[in-house]
Amino acid sequence: MEKEKTIMDYDTVALDDENSALLIIDQTKLPTETEIIALKTAQEIWDAIYLLKVRGAPAIGVAAGYGMYLLAKQIRTDNFEEFYREFVKQKDFLNSSRPTAVNLSWALKRMEQVCLDHKEKPVREIKALLKKESEEIQAEDIRVCKAIGEYGLSLVKPGDGILTHCNAGQLATSKYGTATAPIYLGQERGYGFHVFADETRPLLQGARLTSYELYSSGVDVTLICDNMSAAVMKNGWIDAVFVGCDRVAANGDTANKIGTSVVAAVANYYHIPVYICAPTSTIDMNTLTGDDIRIEQRPAGEVTEMWYKERMAPEGVKVFNPAFDVTDHELIAAIVTEYGIARAPYTQSLKEIMEKKS
Amino acid sequence: MEKEKTIMDYDTVALDDENSALLIIDQTKLPTETEIIALKTAQEIWDAIYLLKVRGAPAIGVAAGYGMYLLAKQIRTDNFEEFYREFVKQKDFLNSSRPTAVNLSWALKRMEQVCLDHKEKPVREIKALLKKESEEIQAEDIRVCKAIGEYGLSLVKPGDGILTHCNAGQLATSKYGTATAPIYLGQERGYGFHVFADETRPLLQGARLTSYELYSSGVDVTLICDNMSAAVMKNGWIDAVFVGCDRVAANGDTANKIGTSVVAAVANYYHIPVYICAPTSTIDMNTLTGDDIRIEQRPAGEVTEMWYKERMAPEGVKVFNPAFDVTDHELIAAIVTEYGIARAPYTQSLKEIMEKKS
Repeated sequence: MEKEKTIMDYDTVALDDENSALLIIDQTKLPTETEIIALKTAQEIWDAIYLLKVRGAPAIGVAAGYGMYLLAKQIRTDNFEEFYREFVKQKDFLNSSRPTAVNLSWALKRMEQVCLDHKEKPVREIKALLKKESEEIQAEDIRVCKAIGEYGLSLVKPGDGILTHCNAGQLATSKYGTATAPIYLGQERGYGFHVFADETRPLLQGARLTSYELYSSGVDVTLICDNMSAAVMKNGWIDAVFVGCDRVAANGDTANKIGTSVVAAVANYYHIPVYICAPTSTIDMNTLTGDDIRIEQRPAGEVTEMWYKERMAPEGVKVFNPAFDVTDHELIAAIVTEYGIARAPYTQSLKEIMEKKS
Repeated sequence: MEKEKTIMDYDTVALDDENSALLIIDQTKLPTETEIIALKTAQEIWDAIYLLKVRGAPAIGVAAGYGMYLLAKQIRTDNFEEFYREFVKQKDFLNSSRPTAVNLSWALKRMEQVCLDHKEKPVREIKALLKKESEEIQAEDIRVCKAIGEYGLSLVKPGDGILTHCNAGQLATSKYGTATAPIYLGQERGYGFHVFADETRPLLQGARLTSYELYSSGVDVTLICDNMSAAVMKNGWIDAVFVGCDRVAANGDTANKIGTSVVAAVANYYHIPVYICAPTSTIDMNTLTGDDIRIEQRPAGEVTEMWYKERMAPEGVKVFNPAFDVTDHELIAAIVTEYGIARAPYTQSLKEIMEKKS
């Protein structure tokens, strides 16, 4: 009997074997359908990013790299000026799919730099270098996630209970994820973790994405509502909390999906360590503390209506719906990066991590 | 212009002016429709309790009292034995609508006792005494809620921010509610509270019921997801947490809707007092600590499917879905009862409260 394929058999984002299409898992179909779609045209790639078929900062960066390579490959000229003009046009188009996604413009700029650095070379060679660069963007992402996974794994032991919030998983990167990297590495090595995934209201990334990817990978995962964290911790089922992050300030204060600081405060009460999995790309030494991080407010309908279909709160009621919250550094046991583990005092340890990077 | 009626203009449960029907707000229609329905037959009353059209322990008790009176009134005999036989038949029928609802059997037994205590009297007079008893059950409920409200109000000041979880509101009682009683009394006296209501996953009682009843009563209420409590507390918007309870153990450990202990742990971190509003009927001195309270587990579908319509988590994923959690007494600043405010050490203060009662 053929073994059913799981998400671990795919990269979230990849180039097909003929280098003619960008393959992604259509995340808007999850958790009910696992559909790999092939994107070839600029419009298809733009739509996939705009419609969140591919999401998560690292995954978007990788998709942008491969996407840009595919579009460059389709430009039919041997003249660099003509090639570059068309390249920039396509790049600006892709960049307009999610203007606020930092990794999107970062990856596209990196691809553009390849053109500029090699303008004296034949266009054919530039295209080959673009392919290499896009592969390198993905390889770096995987290396970063894997390194975070190794460092994270050193903080837990076989059989441990792990709680995670939102989706800082494989689906948000090209492989392993960040908060899930220790879990996947542990899974490969038979650690037998018991994972609890917060559903993460209002958009339910924990239910739709994290519980999906862990379950489909054979990890022992249990889905809970966000308000059940104290119950599982009080039961003694949780040994460590692993979460991702959007931005880490120089003092260790961490902005991440709304609810992270709830989990952290509850874990703190039950003496359970909270580990932030943070690629150094998310550490911002120019942001001194969490107070300097602006929190995006999102539409009330996300809270008051179930998937915008059925009203669950009275018409007109006020709603507070922040996308993120800031977890005080004193609630964080360690910040796990691809260059090692930072512990308090973070102002010092994060500085040392960033020095290793440069 | 006629002022639009709000929920405060109705009792959640009442007898109509002709003593011929039980009037309830159909809670299954909330928050989109406020419909008062009139129940006359045993089957209508049974259905209303079974289908949660009326819910909340005190409200069910009041509905059972009035319902039993209406059914007794319909018994056409002057012979006590015949009357009592039919009374018990109807009583057992109503009791089967929610066998685990303690207040249901408690109220029905109280009504039966009226029959037994006055069996020598004419059936007509017994019916009048049953009416009085059912009115007394409601009057007691209102007195208890109001007393809790007065004691609770003494713990806060005008303009305070208050967070509440689940629905221990007017809709769960016949008036004022328990956790909402200080809010409603404050509203009557112009306190200008700013209330935040947790939506309370998975069944969203906070969104559907609490935000509805407070909003419809003109209270300044903001709906949040359960995982946003830390964000509002960190912003300095919360001065006190008021929640209800299902059972209080002799040491003060309190079982209440799942998520209460999350709120309590987070409030503790932000140095915000947590007040449990507890009618003495919920204080169980025979339960020594929270460890002795059995927690009901509920169906996974409540978490994995949005109102059982759309799947939000992968088929087959494990779910932990406890109905309640237990908040450690050390997280509780005070337990507010109709006989006064108990503070730590609770083993002593709750004993004193229960002595006042008896």
